[in-house]
Amino acid sequence: MSEVAQLYKYNFDAYSLEKNSEDYFADSFNPTEDMNSTYWLNFHSMKNKEAIIKLCDKLCIDKILQEDLFEPEKRTRLEEYSDYVYFSIVSALPKEGLNNFDLKKERISFIIGDNYLISFQEKPSDHFPTVRERIEYKRGKIRYKGPDFLLFRMLEAIIDNYSEVVEEIGVNIELLDKIVLRDPKSEVLRKVEWEKRKLLDLRKIVFPMKDLMGQLDRVENELIIEDNIHYFRELKDTCYGLIEEIEAKKQMLDGVANLYYAIQGQRMNEIMKVLTVTSAIFIPLTFVVGVYGMNFENMPELSSKYGYFIIWGVMILITAALVFIFWKRGWLKRNT
Amino acid sequence: MSEVAQLYKYNFDAYSLEKNSEDYFADSFNPTEDMNSTYWLNFHSMKNKEAIIKLCDKLCIDKILQEDLFEPEKRTRLEEYSDYVYFSIVSALPKEGLNNFDLKKERISFIIGDNYLISFQEKPSDHFPTVRERIEYKRGKIRYKGPDFLLFRMLEAIIDNYSEVVEEIGVNIELLDKIVLRDPKSEVLRKVEWEKRKLLDLRKIVFPMKDLMGQLDRVENELIIEDNIHYFRELKDTCYGLIEEIEAKKQMLDGVANLYYAIQGQRMNEIMKVLTVTSAIFIPLTFVVGVYGMNFENMPELSSKYGYFIIWGVMILITAALVFIFWKRGWLKRNT
Amino acid sequence: MSEVAQLYKYNFDAYSLEKNSEDYFADSFNPTEDMNSTYWLNFHSMKNKEAIIKLCDKLCIDKILQEDLFEPEKRTRLEEYSDYVYFSIVSALPKEGLNNFDLKKERISFIIGDNYLISFQEKPSDHFPTVRERIEYKRGKIRYKGPDFLLFRMLEAIIDNYSEVVEEIGVNIELLDKIVLRDPKSEVLRKVEWEKRKLLDLRKIVFPMKDLMGQLDRVENELIIEDNIHYFRELKDTCYGLIEEIEAKKQMLDGVANLYYAIQGQRMNEIMKVLTVTSAIFIPLTFVVGVYGMNFENMPELSSKYGYFIIWGVMILITAALVFIFWKRGWLKRNT
Amino acid sequence: MSEVAQLYKYNFDAYSLEKNSEDYFADSFNPTEDMNSTYWLNFHSMKNKEAIIKLCDKLCIDKILQEDLFEPEKRTRLEEYSDYVYFSIVSALPKEGLNNFDLKKERISFIIGDNYLISFQEKPSDHFPTVRERIEYKRGKIRYKGPDFLLFRMLEAIIDNYSEVVEEIGVNIELLDKIVLRDPKSEVLRKVEWEKRKLLDLRKIVFPMKDLMGQLDRVENELIIEDNIHYFRELKDTCYGLIEEIEAKKQMLDGVANLYYAIQGQRMNEIMKVLTVTSAIFIPLTFVVGVYGMNFENMPELSSKYGYFIIWGVMILITAALVFIFWKRGWLKRNT
Amino acid sequence: MSEVAQLYKYNFDAYSLEKNSEDYFADSFNPTEDMNSTYWLNFHSMKNKEAIIKLCDKLCIDKILQEDLFEPEKRTRLEEYSDYVYFSIVSALPKEGLNNFDLKKERISFIIGDNYLISFQEKPSDHFPTVRERIEYKRGKIRYKGPDFLLFRMLEAIIDNYSEVVEEIGVNIELLDKIVLRDPKSEVLRKVEWEKRKLLDLRKIVFPMKDLMGQLDRVENELIIEDNIHYFRELKDTCYGLIEEIEAKKQMLDGVANLYYAIQGQRMNEIMKVLTVTSAIFIPLTFVVGVYGMNFENMPELSSKYGYFIIWGVMILITAALVFIFWKRGWLKRNT
Repeated sequence: MSEVAQLYKYNFDAYSLEKNSEDYFADSFNPTEDMNSTYWLNFHSMKNKEAIIKLCDKLCIDKILQEDLFEPEKRTRLEEYSDYVYFSIVSALPKEGLNNFDLKKERISFIIGDNYLISFQEKPSDHFPTVRERIEYKRGKIRYKGPDFLLFRMLEAIIDNYSEVVEEIGVNIELLDKIVLRDPKSEVLRKVEWEKRKLLDLRKIVFPMKDLMGQLDRVENELIIEDNIHYFRELKDTCYGLIEEIEAKKQMLDGVANLYYAIQGQRMNEIMKVLTVTSAIFIPLTFVVGVYGMNFENMPELSSKYGYFIIWGVMILITAALVFIFWKRGWLKRNT
Repeated sequence: MSEVAQLYKYNFDAYSLEKNSEDYFADSFNPTEDMNSTYWLNFHSMKNKEAIIKLCDKLCIDKILQEDLFEPEKRTRLEEYSDYVYFSIVSALPKEGLNNFDLKKERISFIIGDNYLISFQEKPSDHFPTVRERIEYKRGKIRYKGPDFLLFRMLEAIIDNYSEVVEEIGVNIELLDKIVLRDPKSEVLRKVEWEKRKLLDLRKIVFPMKDLMGQLDRVENELIIEDNIHYFRELKDTCYGLIEEIEAKKQMLDGVANLYYAIQGQRMNEIMKVLTVTSAIFIPLTFVVGVYGMNFENMPELSSKYGYFIIWGVMILITAALVFIFWKRGWLKRNT
Repeated sequence: MSEVAQLYKYNFDAYSLEKNSEDYFADSFNPTEDMNSTYWLNFHSMKNKEAIIKLCDKLCIDKILQEDLFEPEKRTRLEEYSDYVYFSIVSALPKEGLNNFDLKKERISFIIGDNYLISFQEKPSDHFPTVRERIEYKRGKIRYKGPDFLLFRMLEAIIDNYSEVVEEIGVNIELLDKIVLRDPKSEVLRKVEWEKRKLLDLRKIVFPMKDLMGQLDRVENELIIEDNIHYFRELKDTCYGLIEEIEAKKQMLDGVANLYYAIQGQRMNEIMKVLTVTSAIFIPLTFVVGVYGMNFENMPELSSKYGYFIIWGVMILITAALVFIFWKRGWLKRNT
Repeated sequence: MSEVAQLYKYNFDAYSLEKNSEDYFADSFNPTEDMNSTYWLNFHSMKNKEAIIKLCDKLCIDKILQEDLFEPEKRTRLEEYSDYVYFSIVSALPKEGLNNFDLKKERISFIIGDNYLISFQEKPSDHFPTVRERIEYKRGKIRYKGPDFLLFRMLEAIIDNYSEVVEEIGVNIELLDKIVLRDPKSEVLRKVEWEKRKLLDLRKIVFPMKDLMGQLDRVENELIIEDNIHYFRELKDTCYGLIEEIEAKKQMLDGVANLYYAIQGQRMNEIMKVLTVTSAIFIPLTFVVGVYGMNFENMPELSSKYGYFIIWGVMILITAALVFIFWKRGWLKRNT
Repeated sequence: MSEVAQLYKYNFDAYSLEKNSEDYFADSFNPTEDMNSTYWLNFHSMKNKEAIIKLCDKLCIDKILQEDLFEPEKRTRLEEYSDYVYFSIVSALPKEGLNNFDLKKERISFIIGDNYLISFQEKPSDHFPTVRERIEYKRGKIRYKGPDFLLFRMLEAIIDNYSEVVEEIGVNIELLDKIVLRDPKSEVLRKVEWEKRKLLDLRKIVFPMKDLMGQLDRVENELIIEDNIHYFRELKDTCYGLIEEIEAKKQMLDGVANLYYAIQGQRMNEIMKVLTVTSAIFIPLTFVVGVYGMNFENMPELSSKYGYFIIWGVMILITAALVFIFWKRGWLKRNT
């Protein structure tokens, strides 16, 4: 009923877009009809399992692959068959702000045949607006080329999303950096950990992605034209760059944590200085006044006329001396 | 006597299951009887050494291999012979909860011949329920294929157990994370260490497993059909993924430890603040009251009528000033 | 209007230099005119997009490359075409002093054809004074060789700039080292972080640069003469050396941070010693004088004639004993 | 004179053992006598340099090799000659207990010819009891095979010793772990360092050993029969496993050190809590009683009949309030 | 004028040594004179630039190489020409004691032709005494072999110097270890940093040296005889060993630093214990005596006959109880 699937049919001259239910396409989808056009069938939901299985059967897709399609959180993999290639990857989208401790991940599967590409998304998140635009407005070479180039553009869009995730984490690092300098609490460190875990998670996604690109290089199938292989090689390089970037970001997060520890340590130092200066000045003075609080009958100083004032003098001298010593050691200035 | 060994005999059409003692199978096991069926003989115990040796002799298994079978904690290895392949790996099963400092490990050995596979487990732990199910209910391709595919399914089950161990450790990390935030004690760090050691241990198991898969790729023997090699390659990829995962988990444990240190440090800071604020306020005041506790005969302030009240005023002023200073420095609020 | 582009035309015998606007060169640039000369067209600005596109069209440059030229912060890449090679790298210039937290980066693109090289700089920063000098004063082999050698000299100049950035960071490390020893504040650590980030950033630039040199090695195009390939190989080695150097610098920064922590820790120790020595001496004494400040009616010591002096003696003895103990423990000397 | 050398002569049927001085063997040793037997000549000392040189000359051993034989602490190396192979490795034996800061190392050299193997030990430590047993009791295949298999068994014995060293370190780690929990002193950390250095040292021995096995794989000499090469390959795998194990042990030692720091930190926290709780309770109280120790003539409270008892009440209230606050913060319970 | 250059001319039968100025050799050096002898010309200074250039021109050395010769601190490189090979490396000599923060480095360049080798040292430091000895006393094979073997001996001498530097650092680590245990000051950490930087520096020298050896392996030139290549391969292994060694030394330095931190922490703990024990005992007692120093008119205890003595009893009890508690917690014993 609902329009959870879209079919683009395009060639150099024209394109058509059809939106309909899974059942509809299970019945009507027939890429052999026009071998000069490229068909892109995209599913935004995988709930209608029967319709999808029906479609797969019609296209002679291996039964085990069909099982794999519906398994929840599986690993990135590529399976070559004689007349189609199966693909399964994990996409990641950025989430804004510091209060997220995980990534927005989704599994996307692909089946590419001679002149068609079917993509299965678990949720109706839109990963491919730029690809659609390119088809509709005949931008770039997409309309001149086959489904392998379409695949390239789609993978490119997904990898661009990875980059955005990394950038978002970069933004968060800047934020954390500022928070650490302004108000260092152990909570900051927790958030540093969250960002690190996201990076670890992303790394686990990008790493097999990179290998996949390598596998595509070596694909013996004619589905991917030699001429286009260099596009996939470029994506591989981007993945390498991303892994480097992830590593760099991880080191920056370590830097934030170190800064946190340093500032905490410095605050501790400052607190201790206040305690030490106060104690070192007043504890001796308290002793002095304690002496003359004793009740001995025979204490000559007590009956001296200026004894009280002399003691004040002595105490002021002691204080001045101590303050001078502490000032010289630099304990009296705050050292932010 | 006891039924510590099981024999599955199956082909596309039918399967039979026999449970009996080692002695029984040492006498009766004869895979050459029906070359179109696959035989899977599984031992749940290796105590009846003579029976097993008798069986091996019957199958012309190398004498040194037979020795190796009974050695306690040996390394992962693969030995190719002209008409069988010998295998020895270490399995690991998850243990629940935080109070385990090691893995539940077991050595499992395999001998695969033309149409049979013999597996030796040291203990009656059940690693292969899914494999049995697949044979009994004719699920997947297992009944269409030979002992190499059976081996694949068994190794897959073992590697799946590794993944479960990693996941269990993941669960423990979440727990430790919460404990650190709620009640950080040095004991937490010990448990972090335990989990790390489990990861180190698992890594030492998974690493040679991965190489083993590579060796299987290169096996010159016809026992493993070319068609099935890609299954083993996939297992290798899973092992790589596991090693990545183990590395990530190790970094998460480091994160937990860092959080622990940070929270400890912050608590220390808080304790010191309380000490410093209390001392810095009351030590000077104690000095002031000490002054007027002195017994000098000539202390003009003492005889003044409102001296006592003036001193109170002065002390309240000092206190207010100090409180104000500490408040401005943010030492009066708790900073969790 | 403004002279944002320069054209060098040179061969073994002579050279000419023309400075003019983009529009002028879009019209007049024609390298096929004299196949025995090398043309180097350098743009100092990329604002006049139309003129540049016009020029590219004239030289039959791929449309997608033209798009790529104007994209802001893109990655290092190399694209081989049948009669030209396209190049895009990121340059970095050093900034003096400790107050910079990032690098001065710029994207530079190259197009090399049979006998011409076009370079596009985003800003009018001068990266290539030595190259100009070599052309003008016929220094070295540049006038004997083609555009590939020119390219080598230009890349060499850019890589030399990277080295200068690393050296500048080295200078900063020396400075930070001295600051840490003289006056350790947490701000130093922030600057250590800044330098580390610069290194991370530079590494991300140098890494693909190194790969680019490798790609040039493997270029199937005749644009780069076999004879000159070893120059590029040498640049690759320099890049490797730079990466090593960056790693070493990073470890030195870690060293500075560790020194900071150690000195902070030692200062803390010193502060605590002062507090402890003062408290441990005067708190017991204050107790002693407190005892004789009590107002009990029956305190025999109070009425003794020399009680006061005996108490002084006792207190001096206690003090001497404590001072001796602390002196033996080495707590009285400052331990810088 | 003394029996510092032993000669085993064995074949499938029989074996003989002769113990005698170096001089004796320098004269009598003649492996060409019986080409069907394997000769193993083992020296337990290298002091009688002339005798050894004489023997070497007789066997036409290269002069430079002879020099190398007597150099003290040299690196692992392998030298191939047309009719013999020279070998030099470093063995390591475990020492029991925590009070050792280095390994018991020894250099062992080998010369293997067509049907003989000469081994040179610097000290009379017995590395090869199992090998002797195998020869004497005809255990395993050793009597069926040539000097290459003998070499394999000897290297295996040496590598097994390495494993024992690693295990001994593992035992020490367990011990250190317990000591840290029971009584953490900085001395523990020194011992952790000692163990780490042993691991570093062992790693430097095992690493070239592994490469040596690889070189043996590639030996072009017929001295090592193709059939036996897989034994050496297996030893190589064991070396790889050892290196992994060493790495894991190093990380465990880091864990022990971290635990030490954590426990130290926690102890510090506890000490500070005691100090803070005591001070925060008694310092304010001391101030209160100080107030009423002042000698002002006009202090209304002093003459009030129940003033003293009211003050006691006030002080008890303050104490109760503070104790309650500290109890709520969890500062009153010990948190081991 | 001064004898800054030396010429060795040698063959199997004889050798001659000539010491003279650069100008002299620029004129007289002619290796083609006697093709059966090997010529080694060594410069101890490069100040007489013209003479060296003159010599190079005579030997038809490439102009760019000549430039490179005089560049100050350049990288390790190798340049192959049709009839000579150019070489440039960095040597390092050990400096004794802890007060050095850098290495004694020097650049040495080599040119080897058919039957000559020219070496250029910047300073008159003597790197090659053993090589001279070997030539003069006809030790080893040097007189039987050509300039490639001479080069091997020279490189060996340089690499041996690297080993000595590493050993010297090892000695320093032992020293630092002892200093840390005896008297830990933050200065120790600075010296630890110095040693680490030396290691980093040395690593940057040894790393390209190792690659150079690899390049020599692959040299297509006939200047280096196949027969001698294995010598260079051995040097490469030594370089690998050195890099391992450097890594190990770096980890040992980390160990020293950790020990320093641990001992500092323990000292802090001890100081805090003294402070806490003193305060926790005397602050409550001071409060007690403060109570009876109050001047309330109605304080029944004051007029009691034994009040003073009872209070002393109470205070002794309190002290005993606290001492007992601290003794049980182990705070009274020093825990070095």
